[in-house]
Amino acid sequence: MLESVGYGVNNAEEPLHELSFTRRDPGPKDVQIEILYCGVCHSDLHTVRNEWNNTVFPVVPGHEIIGRVTKVGDQVTKFKVGDMAGVGCLVDSCQRCGSCAEGLEQYCENGWVGTYNGEEMHTGGMTYGGYSNNIVVTEKFVLRVPDKLDPAAAAPLLCAGITTYSPLRHWKIGPGKKVGIVGLGGLGHMGVKLARAMGANVVLFTTSANKREDAMRLGAHEVVVSRDAAQMAQHENSFDFILNTVAAPHNLDAFMVLLKREGTMTLVGAPAEPHPSPQVFNLIMKRRHIAGSLIGGIAETQEMLDFCAEHGIVSDIEMIPIQKINEAYERMLKSDVKYRFVIDMASLPRPQGAASAKSTVS
Amino acid sequence: MLESVGYGVNNAEEPLHELSFTRRDPGPKDVQIEILYCGVCHSDLHTVRNEWNNTVFPVVPGHEIIGRVTKVGDQVTKFKVGDMAGVGCLVDSCQRCGSCAEGLEQYCENGWVGTYNGEEMHTGGMTYGGYSNNIVVTEKFVLRVPDKLDPAAAAPLLCAGITTYSPLRHWKIGPGKKVGIVGLGGLGHMGVKLARAMGANVVLFTTSANKREDAMRLGAHEVVVSRDAAQMAQHENSFDFILNTVAAPHNLDAFMVLLKREGTMTLVGAPAEPHPSPQVFNLIMKRRHIAGSLIGGIAETQEMLDFCAEHGIVSDIEMIPIQKINEAYERMLKSDVKYRFVIDMASLPRPQGAASAKSTVS
Repeated sequence: MLESVGYGVNNAEEPLHELSFTRRDPGPKDVQIEILYCGVCHSDLHTVRNEWNNTVFPVVPGHEIIGRVTKVGDQVTKFKVGDMAGVGCLVDSCQRCGSCAEGLEQYCENGWVGTYNGEEMHTGGMTYGGYSNNIVVTEKFVLRVPDKLDPAAAAPLLCAGITTYSPLRHWKIGPGKKVGIVGLGGLGHMGVKLARAMGANVVLFTTSANKREDAMRLGAHEVVVSRDAAQMAQHENSFDFILNTVAAPHNLDAFMVLLKREGTMTLVGAPAEPHPSPQVFNLIMKRRHIAGSLIGGIAETQEMLDFCAEHGIVSDIEMIPIQKINEAYERMLKSDVKYRFVIDMASLPRPQGAASAKSTVS
Repeated sequence: MLESVGYGVNNAEEPLHELSFTRRDPGPKDVQIEILYCGVCHSDLHTVRNEWNNTVFPVVPGHEIIGRVTKVGDQVTKFKVGDMAGVGCLVDSCQRCGSCAEGLEQYCENGWVGTYNGEEMHTGGMTYGGYSNNIVVTEKFVLRVPDKLDPAAAAPLLCAGITTYSPLRHWKIGPGKKVGIVGLGGLGHMGVKLARAMGANVVLFTTSANKREDAMRLGAHEVVVSRDAAQMAQHENSFDFILNTVAAPHNLDAFMVLLKREGTMTLVGAPAEPHPSPQVFNLIMKRRHIAGSLIGGIAETQEMLDFCAEHGIVSDIEMIPIQKINEAYERMLKSDVKYRFVIDMASLPRPQGAASAKSTVS
């Protein structure tokens, strides 16, 4: 077994703290990675606090992982020791169903394995995430990280990036399309950058007028304060697509009426309490759609990383040492971050003997 | 002005009764029709009782109209006196916007004109519907009724038929598709017949187990009692498309989880009170969609009539004299009709002098 050290919790009440645990030793198809950076996603907080009532303790969160390959199994062909590698929200799926065959592992019909709090396929234990010094992942679920990307700022691409990239691609966003992004947080700021790079006309919706300047800097062509009914009315029936990144319950109708005929609003955040029920009338009168989208598959995540390298896109981040993670959670709850915390894993004390693994090839 | 007689109301409280009113004389592009049959739609009742708070009184309802052409304007090319003709929910639209250009007049961006309770484009007054002896409609909005269709049973095709045909076509239903139809009423029974004729595998959802036999006779391959959780669970993740015809507020989630990845549930009924808010989780986890659809355009309505003639499809109807209309409304509220009332307009007393119009061409 591989010795690991990380930050996690043994129950929903305690703050995150240092934990020691083990992972499987890398098998013939596995890649072992020394984690350099890990982004902080709101899902981490939900899981640590068991807000979705599905946490198996102890839990070590983190699924926006960038690191360097330290060991590869003898059947591994895409990675070698020393490569920069990424791991996102998925570390396994059935590989037998139709969705897996299409490269849509996030919709695996037999259930994919989350990077943390998932049922490990190899050992029968649970998966532990990226707030730690190392990870072992089957090659198929490891991403190549282009050299052009700053590795720390690339970490949030593995969740916030792909969660916004995938729906923008699926709904064929590009030149000539008018796209709304609702909310300017970790997801929203990536949505703005990506939609802009795809050539769309990008409108950012926010409740905070003071985010205007930042949104424009990030790539929005226009910023609309969604609480201003007159501003909103100017955009009625004009959007091809709206990507709604806000998980807090809110009035969806205010955005639905901004869609053109056959337009779609796609939700990527699931609220703890339901949104007010959307009016069916708004769907019927213009054949509009409400849809959802979940992260992205491995092939599409690689495509997204390559797209970001080509277009010079990374996340806007605030780097923290892992000792500041509990404070970062409190700030995240107040949206006090522009726009994603990333943990510098050099701040994590290394376990004894870990250094020797760095130059070993199995 | 053309003298007309029909059934309608002067206010929301009174029962329907005989009314005399006038319509415009047919202009050069107009077709004048002697109405033979008119279907009874739930919208008629909503409007008569001002349940949508938009009724302008007096109102004469009816938008499932079949009749015989008695007069045509001199620029009319598609109809001649004696032709069987149909009129549905629309009698005009702007003819300038993108939706009209695409033949999607029901989504006209400047507002289409309803067959009743609409703002008449020619006179500035209101439109009066099909519970009457005659109607004048611009040629563009008049449908050809194939000889093979029984004219009385064809009347409901003009609303119930097109409202279900259009979404089935838009979402590309055909062989190899598993389609659910929710509700076996005026719309649902047409949905079953049409989806079956399009070659789909058709499952009818109903709350009433005693509708099973009838649903199978109408063309369903399978009937699922939607209150039976075990029956429902057998269909999880299996539907390409669900057409939901139930306007009463109900739990949409029970159907959403039956959709495959990227499946769509399309609502064609707008509830007076909202449905319980659908869970976003069900949308996200399988990239599912909720959508709406509104009747159909004129070209598609003609296509639907021709499709019905080809496949021997009409509505299952109960014919009534117009004097029974108030009783029919009460029975419709109890779903006590299989599956659409159609008024035999021969029961309506003819106004003096009307006969002379029957053989006149302008």
